[in-house]
Amino acid sequence: MNREDLLFCVRTLSLSRDAAGFAHLVRHTHPSDLIEAFEVLGTEEVLALLMTLDAPERAGLFAHFADARQDMLVRAMPREAVVQLFEHMPSDDRADLFNRLGEDAKQKLLPALAKVERDDILKLAAYPEGTVGSVTTSDYAYVSPQMTVAEALAHIRATAPDKETIYAVYVLDDGFALRGTVSLRDLVLAEENALIGQIMRRDPVFARAQWPRTQAAELIRHYDLLALPVVNGGEKMVGIVTVDDAMDIEKEQDATQLARFGGTASIGGPDLDMLASPFRQMFGVRVFWLMILTFFGMITSTFVAAQEELLSQAIVLAAFIAPIVDMGGNTGSQSATLVIRAMALGEVKLSWRDIFLVIRRELPVAAALGITIAVLEAVLAYFSKGVGLDVLMVVGLSMLVCTALGGIIGALLPFAARRIGTDPATLSSPLITSVMDLIGVFIYFGFAYAFLGDLLRHAG
Amino acid sequence: MNREDLLFCVRTLSLSRDAAGFAHLVRHTHPSDLIEAFEVLGTEEVLALLMTLDAPERAGLFAHFADARQDMLVRAMPREAVVQLFEHMPSDDRADLFNRLGEDAKQKLLPALAKVERDDILKLAAYPEGTVGSVTTSDYAYVSPQMTVAEALAHIRATAPDKETIYAVYVLDDGFALRGTVSLRDLVLAEENALIGQIMRRDPVFARAQWPRTQAAELIRHYDLLALPVVNGGEKMVGIVTVDDAMDIEKEQDATQLARFGGTASIGGPDLDMLASPFRQMFGVRVFWLMILTFFGMITSTFVAAQEELLSQAIVLAAFIAPIVDMGGNTGSQSATLVIRAMALGEVKLSWRDIFLVIRRELPVAAALGITIAVLEAVLAYFSKGVGLDVLMVVGLSMLVCTALGGIIGALLPFAARRIGTDPATLSSPLITSVMDLIGVFIYFGFAYAFLGDLLRHAG
Repeated sequence: MNREDLLFCVRTLSLSRDAAGFAHLVRHTHPSDLIEAFEVLGTEEVLALLMTLDAPERAGLFAHFADARQDMLVRAMPREAVVQLFEHMPSDDRADLFNRLGEDAKQKLLPALAKVERDDILKLAAYPEGTVGSVTTSDYAYVSPQMTVAEALAHIRATAPDKETIYAVYVLDDGFALRGTVSLRDLVLAEENALIGQIMRRDPVFARAQWPRTQAAELIRHYDLLALPVVNGGEKMVGIVTVDDAMDIEKEQDATQLARFGGTASIGGPDLDMLASPFRQMFGVRVFWLMILTFFGMITSTFVAAQEELLSQAIVLAAFIAPIVDMGGNTGSQSATLVIRAMALGEVKLSWRDIFLVIRRELPVAAALGITIAVLEAVLAYFSKGVGLDVLMVVGLSMLVCTALGGIIGALLPFAARRIGTDPATLSSPLITSVMDLIGVFIYFGFAYAFLGDLLRHAG
Repeated sequence: MNREDLLFCVRTLSLSRDAAGFAHLVRHTHPSDLIEAFEVLGTEEVLALLMTLDAPERAGLFAHFADARQDMLVRAMPREAVVQLFEHMPSDDRADLFNRLGEDAKQKLLPALAKVERDDILKLAAYPEGTVGSVTTSDYAYVSPQMTVAEALAHIRATAPDKETIYAVYVLDDGFALRGTVSLRDLVLAEENALIGQIMRRDPVFARAQWPRTQAAELIRHYDLLALPVVNGGEKMVGIVTVDDAMDIEKEQDATQLARFGGTASIGGPDLDMLASPFRQMFGVRVFWLMILTFFGMITSTFVAAQEELLSQAIVLAAFIAPIVDMGGNTGSQSATLVIRAMALGEVKLSWRDIFLVIRRELPVAAALGITIAVLEAVLAYFSKGVGLDVLMVVGLSMLVCTALGGIIGALLPFAARRIGTDPATLSSPLITSVMDLIGVFIYFGFAYAFLGDLLRHAG
């Protein structure tokens, strides 16, 4: 069903309260599409439709809603339905939902749950936001090394409905320590009587629950995994991170990195979100960076103002300050983002060898760019303002140096950022530009005094 | 085995030519780790080790090498080994390798292959770089609707070794048209005698071979798929795109988007790569954008130069040009990247409703930022340069307008880009800054004439 038809269908079902029709739609539509269609309905309408489903189906669909929508639905839901939600939702999604409840609601909820669920929720919910533990699901398939392949398959068949995935199967000993992994493909192709302990792959890739969740996503991408086992400090298996969650994690990380490069890196707090961040946070983070940039600009303008004498003798110099110092930031942005990209794709690492390789690449390019742009700017300056040769030399030479130097510095900044352990994108484009502005005015007026300094002597 | 041990092991095996030891290592080490370790060896050394493996193992490992390394190995390999490579490599990787061969090598290779392989390679290699077809593998599992579950499982077991994945199984009719999908999980849990045609899911999500490959990756992420079926114009199934390739596609797309936002968007050609792009391309793309920025800067500086009279009466005005006009670009960078991020995460779409939501969010923030920064700049200006009230008004008001306007314009630019069908990141940070520079000088001198215009009358 295409998008418009689905929207129409959902609206009609909402108005007619057609429970059977809605249940049929749910069974034949992908949850992601349903959630999109629901955006046009209000919370009460969505709730009315959800309550026509049985508890397991309702929980399965509920888990796909965005966090904000989930919170609104939970507040409007009768208490018994909320308990059912926590009984049937996937373990990673319900741990997240639990963490967003108020203290009061949490205390009321826990006694109503069975011990097994209560323990599971508390265990997963204890992991801080942003860690591997916070995106871990405990709904994984496991077998013991002593089982035969046939026994393992029977066990998987019996327990499958509650598992997030049965394609990656984990071999645990009695202490729940991870001994190895075996794929469903391995099981289906193996001899029925073979022992799991013999066919399993040992030394599996794993993640620790306290690692950043982006590390889990990177491991999944690097090793082409469908799921990654997560262990805790006691080497016991906690759960798994699945590849679909890894894709979402990486998408959010990369999208946020772009925003950080635009100058919105959050210091210690959650990342900025255009629609969701509260005003205080949005204003606070952005004004912090703008103030830093203002101070940089203040230093630059103070310096320029101090050249009052020279400027008053050659007013035309003022016209070129901005275009010339900007070019350093432009070239620097180019090289910085190219290096960050190379780092993200694993082509460049923090090592002297790679720093050398990058500089060896950038040096001739930056020089060629500098010469080209300097000539262009000088030509434009001559034909548009008819400036004298002195000024042309100042303009040309400072443009050359600013452009080339900007490229080199820009290429080195990501390495510097990595060295101090921060995301290179935190050195944002505006920051690079402001730093290059400051360096640029020194270069510009340096050349200005060299070529036009005599103006002062003659005038004075 | 950790990284240092693996490196040591690989080096030792290379020197000792220990074939059995190497084969053992290959069987117990993840290909991704082996490829990393091989980086320290030269092409000849790697080739020597590879030739100790049997053909299928060699081809499997070979497929993990980066393109450049693959090309060097193929050139050094005996012809018979190259043919074996094409016989045993995964179908998507060998189609890519084929496309990188010279015409001569292609013509020599094709007759040596069996017809089935030849047809498969030519079919997949025909898809242009960047399309879904170019990342499609024809090694997928399929069954017919008339089969029983037991027959289907037996068929899958028999054909599994050659398949990229057996977890997603495609139901095709005699004409190779896609009728539905069934997962291995479904098969393992279903009744043995049930008919595939009855248990399969109809109307599967699919991609067309000519679509951009990023669209396939997005579908995989949106629908949490393990694989996505690909059909051609005749509605026949061509192959599948797997989730691990989708993760790599999205990683490259996002990393490249960041570089594009830094001002390196390629016009029609391949994306720039710091280490791999030839000098001509690297210089050509970057100088193109820098020239555009130079022209923008020329217009800006021409305008500033034309204000010579006013500047000569109030030299201090020159000092504030850069910091004030830069702030428009800074705030614009912030809001533009926040909107691009929201678009990437699906929170914001190209619609009037979302444009309105974004502006409604940005307006108060931009205004608050403008007021704060304007006051800050005015205070700094007063205490550092002791400027008069007139100049303070000019500085404060133009800073306020530049900052706030920059935020608004920056927030709207991604929508404009999407409207004309281009990636928002093409409107790079340097471009945003240059546009805001131009707007900024108009605003600045507008206020300057308003408050200081009488200076001209008195002086003149």
